[in-house]
Amino acid sequence: MLTQSEVEDIRHTAAALADAARVATLAHFRKPGLTADTKEATHFDPVTIADRESEIAMRDILARRRPDDAILGEEFGLKPGVSGLTWVLDPIDGTRGFLSGTPTWGVLISVADGNGPIYGLIDQPYIQERFEGGFGRALVNGPMGASVLRTRSTPDLSQAILLSTFPEVGDDAEGEAFRRVAGQVRLVRYGMDCYGYALLAAGQVDLVIEAGLQTYDVQAPIAVIEAAGGVVTNWQGGSACQGGQVLAAANPEIHAAAMAYLNA
Amino acid sequence: MLTQSEVEDIRHTAAALADAARVATLAHFRKPGLTADTKEATHFDPVTIADRESEIAMRDILARRRPDDAILGEEFGLKPGVSGLTWVLDPIDGTRGFLSGTPTWGVLISVADGNGPIYGLIDQPYIQERFEGGFGRALVNGPMGASVLRTRSTPDLSQAILLSTFPEVGDDAEGEAFRRVAGQVRLVRYGMDCYGYALLAAGQVDLVIEAGLQTYDVQAPIAVIEAAGGVVTNWQGGSACQGGQVLAAANPEIHAAAMAYLNA
Repeated sequence: MLTQSEVEDIRHTAAALADAARVATLAHFRKPGLTADTKEATHFDPVTIADRESEIAMRDILARRRPDDAILGEEFGLKPGVSGLTWVLDPIDGTRGFLSGTPTWGVLISVADGNGPIYGLIDQPYIQERFEGGFGRALVNGPMGASVLRTRSTPDLSQAILLSTFPEVGDDAEGEAFRRVAGQVRLVRYGMDCYGYALLAAGQVDLVIEAGLQTYDVQAPIAVIEAAGGVVTNWQGGSACQGGQVLAAANPEIHAAAMAYLNA
Repeated sequence: MLTQSEVEDIRHTAAALADAARVATLAHFRKPGLTADTKEATHFDPVTIADRESEIAMRDILARRRPDDAILGEEFGLKPGVSGLTWVLDPIDGTRGFLSGTPTWGVLISVADGNGPIYGLIDQPYIQERFEGGFGRALVNGPMGASVLRTRSTPDLSQAILLSTFPEVGDDAEGEAFRRVAGQVRLVRYGMDCYGYALLAAGQVDLVIEAGLQTYDVQAPIAVIEAAGGVVTNWQGGSACQGGQVLAAANPEIHAAAMAYLNA
């Protein structure tokens, strides 16, 4: 069990990381000459210099403030620790959105113990909007000020708004499962990257369903959404902490209804 | 030919409309209890009270400042005028995005003479970002300050980023035509509503292709994009001022390349 002062130190450190990542990412966002490397030849996965600078800036702060904690980051992998806590960092989630100038990408920061994420933060630097959850609270601070995050109580799929980043969700079978749910809901929207999970925590949408995620894509959203009252699992109802197929829902009822169609 | 003082009055009036629409829309954005009427039973077209209040606020300003101009608005139709100028208003473009909490909807304001739009403005109230074009200049003013809008010079489809609001573009034949272009480009993204046209004007993406648009959906984007150096037509290369099928491109080369695939 963490003491209150340990909790405060984690919160303040996470805020410092997010502040540094804002500076590092906005130095390149919508700037001319932004390049996109391709990590895998068969898969469009742009990695910009912004991505690397953002993670380096965060790792530098952790080296000073939390030297005993482990770090798992998208760009630079695992740095082991001795405290039992791991900072999981995605310096730019939604690099394709970043490259397209859309304000849907984000910086994902979370802290996990042996059982999964205990605190998470989703930051959208351009909008200057930060969603955080864990240690008994969930908050957003953005253009309209600060407020509590609370998922909504939409009871059934016919009233639900469903988000996913791409219409081609995963492989053929995964896409078919997704479309079974999509056929039941009121509205499906695409293209939100990690901002979709923030909207779910904020009570704006009811479901986010994706496949092929990495652990650093999902740990911060899990912490924020669970702290706001939502449910995040894989498509079978188990832990989504390792990524893969993710089903995030505003409440247990809509989670169960969506999962039934995913596995129909 | 308008005098410089007439031009300035149009610009200042448009800014006053956009300011009023920001207040009217943000009073309801992400607020509990937002409802969505359905205008047509067969088509999801939510019209919120925010939509109506936003248009009323703009019409009130025009009644005082520009009583001789005509007004064509999405919510309240045509008010005839005697000046030869028509204000074309979409108080919330992207109502589905608005209802989902995404910062992709916008307020569209334009001024047309007998030949089409001569000035346009795309405002995103939540981000507090305003794109405007016409009378020889194109500008954005947002979280990163003010700067000139300039479309980019991407020479061929293999390097292009293509946006559309929904993956189901128009009817079956329109969707097929869209997918012919989509198969040629580097990246396709969905879900941006009118913000996609703003990103094209800002040099972030290369193509926006949509179908089934209304005249009030497209006149402001046309003015902004043309002032920034881009090209907007229908899918046959004719005027897009009346809506319908819209092909917006960063430059004439990419426009011609996309049009060839649309009509292949």
